Amino acid sequence: MNIENFNYSSDSFAAVQWNAGMLTLLDQRKLPNEIVYLDYDSAPAVAEAIRGMVVRGAPAIGITAAYAVVLAARSAWQESSEAWREKIEDDLQLLTDARPTAVNLHWAITEMRKTFDQIEGDPEPVLIELATQIHNDDIAANHEMGRLGAELIAPNSQVITHCNAGALATGGYGTALGVIRNAFNKGLLTKVYASETRPWLQGARLTSWELQQDAIPVNLLIDSAASNLMKSGDINWLIVGADRIAANGDVANKIGTYSHAVAAKFHGVKVMVVAPASTVDMQIESGDQIPIENRATDEITDFNRARIAPNEINALNPAFDITPAKLVDFIVTEKGIVEQPNSEKMLAIFG
Amino acid sequence: MNIENFNYSSDSFAAVQWNAGMLTLLDQRKLPNEIVYLDYDSAPAVAEAIRGMVVRGAPAIGITAAYAVVLAARSAWQESSEAWREKIEDDLQLLTDARPTAVNLHWAITEMRKTFDQIEGDPEPVLIELATQIHNDDIAANHEMGRLGAELIAPNSQVITHCNAGALATGGYGTALGVIRNAFNKGLLTKVYASETRPWLQGARLTSWELQQDAIPVNLLIDSAASNLMKSGDINWLIVGADRIAANGDVANKIGTYSHAVAAKFHGVKVMVVAPASTVDMQIESGDQIPIENRATDEITDFNRARIAPNEINALNPAFDITPAKLVDFIVTEKGIVEQPNSEKMLAIFG
Repeated sequence: MNIENFNYSSDSFAAVQWNAGMLTLLDQRKLPNEIVYLDYDSAPAVAEAIRGMVVRGAPAIGITAAYAVVLAARSAWQESSEAWREKIEDDLQLLTDARPTAVNLHWAITEMRKTFDQIEGDPEPVLIELATQIHNDDIAANHEMGRLGAELIAPNSQVITHCNAGALATGGYGTALGVIRNAFNKGLLTKVYASETRPWLQGARLTSWELQQDAIPVNLLIDSAASNLMKSGDINWLIVGADRIAANGDVANKIGTYSHAVAAKFHGVKVMVVAPASTVDMQIESGDQIPIENRATDEITDFNRARIAPNEINALNPAFDITPAKLVDFIVTEKGIVEQPNSEKMLAIFG
Repeated sequence: MNIENFNYSSDSFAAVQWNAGMLTLLDQRKLPNEIVYLDYDSAPAVAEAIRGMVVRGAPAIGITAAYAVVLAARSAWQESSEAWREKIEDDLQLLTDARPTAVNLHWAITEMRKTFDQIEGDPEPVLIELATQIHNDDIAANHEMGRLGAELIAPNSQVITHCNAGALATGGYGTALGVIRNAFNKGLLTKVYASETRPWLQGARLTSWELQQDAIPVNLLIDSAASNLMKSGDINWLIVGADRIAANGDVANKIGTYSHAVAAKFHGVKVMVVAPASTVDMQIESGDQIPIENRATDEITDFNRARIAPNEINALNPAFDITPAKLVDFIVTEKGIVEQPNSEKMLAIFG
């Protein structure tokens, strides 16, 4: 199915959907060349889809996991209506382990699990309701973040974003791209730049596509050209999402975010991190303690299964990096904005 | 022809060779998967090869252009032994225009042209001699830079390099990689990191391969992971080549160099730029005046002719950036080292 036959907007495509008792994911590995939806009816298959990046983006992974708990509960209930709470545990562990850095995955499973004790009879209806609520709350949170973040932006601003923190990474609308959408619609943005985001090219493949669907003009550049662009003096903001935010305001996000934040500091470009409260992990004191996923090195040494680098070359492929709070000007959540974040200010909102 | 059948070292492969009256280039578009040598017997074909990056790297382009002047002179002489000095001009212009940023191209053509007035009869023998001299001088300069640069490096150092400033980018041995080769052989380096260098992947395809041929263990990483690596505190040096150095010490080099240099400054990592004196352009006061080549955007939007980004997306593809002298700790040339470069210190050596 070719993209040219479609005219999507962020309201008309969804990364995660619950349809007729099945979980449907838009296959983000195939974008933008193909629009493929995949259906899932078992939690282990969803765990594999999360690991394999059919779906990605911390909030979208959280929502996906919530629906996967429904599938896990259905299977456990079919196995034993008495012991479903024990039978479900293996699936929950599989889901929890699918990706380590984004805390929303763990958060969503914990939220779903909280209801288990109160459920009488078939757990599915209760859990569907909660998963749907988590999904809808995320969309509402994105719109609120979009509103709050755009209030920080002056007219005639130019923005760089990294990776994809859009509708594709969330329940809908987006975090960083929610702010960009809202600011663009208010006429505040003259230019939006997307860095391509090696190795997975979320910027080139997903952010470019998503903004194009909404007719927001986007300019693509390689990651290492961002500093050079900031040097021009024309860039006002770096706006990104987050995979986990520690209690002191340190931010784990896609590898390359730190590089952009260092360059932003050097050039006086402001840094805005946009993420729902479910991304904040008050159990983790600082970024040092956030587990960083190292992915297979063939993401770097190969492209489309063709070899780029010589055989037997060593490579590093950390999927995330930590941007310390001191490099962040604003953390925007649906619960409010933290300016120049530190432990005290974080505690005041998320304690 | 597969790489696994080869056991090259920097002494046994050459980016540029003059053989039996023909110019032979190692096709760098095909590395590391295929070892292909292409023969050229006309200057316009060489200009096209330079533009298309069969050969790249400022010093290698300069040497290639010198040999191409031999081919141009042969053709002009065949056309008219009286008027060959006029007949050659179109070819020289084609060569000069092939790539705008690297000054070595212009420098080599100017050096060759200086002999024209003294030549009597067939210009080919005189010009072959001079081109060969330029080639041999470059190799000798690289070895001298390798010696001087390694003297700056303390034992147990870890190094990042960007793009390819090796044997493949020069007459042989390399500039930045010449220093790395020499320092490695002296036992001073514990780790060498190569950033992949989007969009053309010189780091992944060329530097990795070239160091592997010399059994120097190299670790590949994406460009935007370099800051994160420097944050570890383990990296001592950023060592890179240059395409042009202005009279004040500003350095034009592969896009991404500036990003690495900003990160190096932020993390206290020292920056060494290694380039032959032919790369220094004392006619250009500062980096602002260096022409920056913008290449076709399909280098970013496509990969191996497969589309990555959506159709009709805007993209920026500057091939180079300018690192201001204030971010450079050492410029190493065969004429000596300039520490904390500025106009005065540059003039003392290159005036």
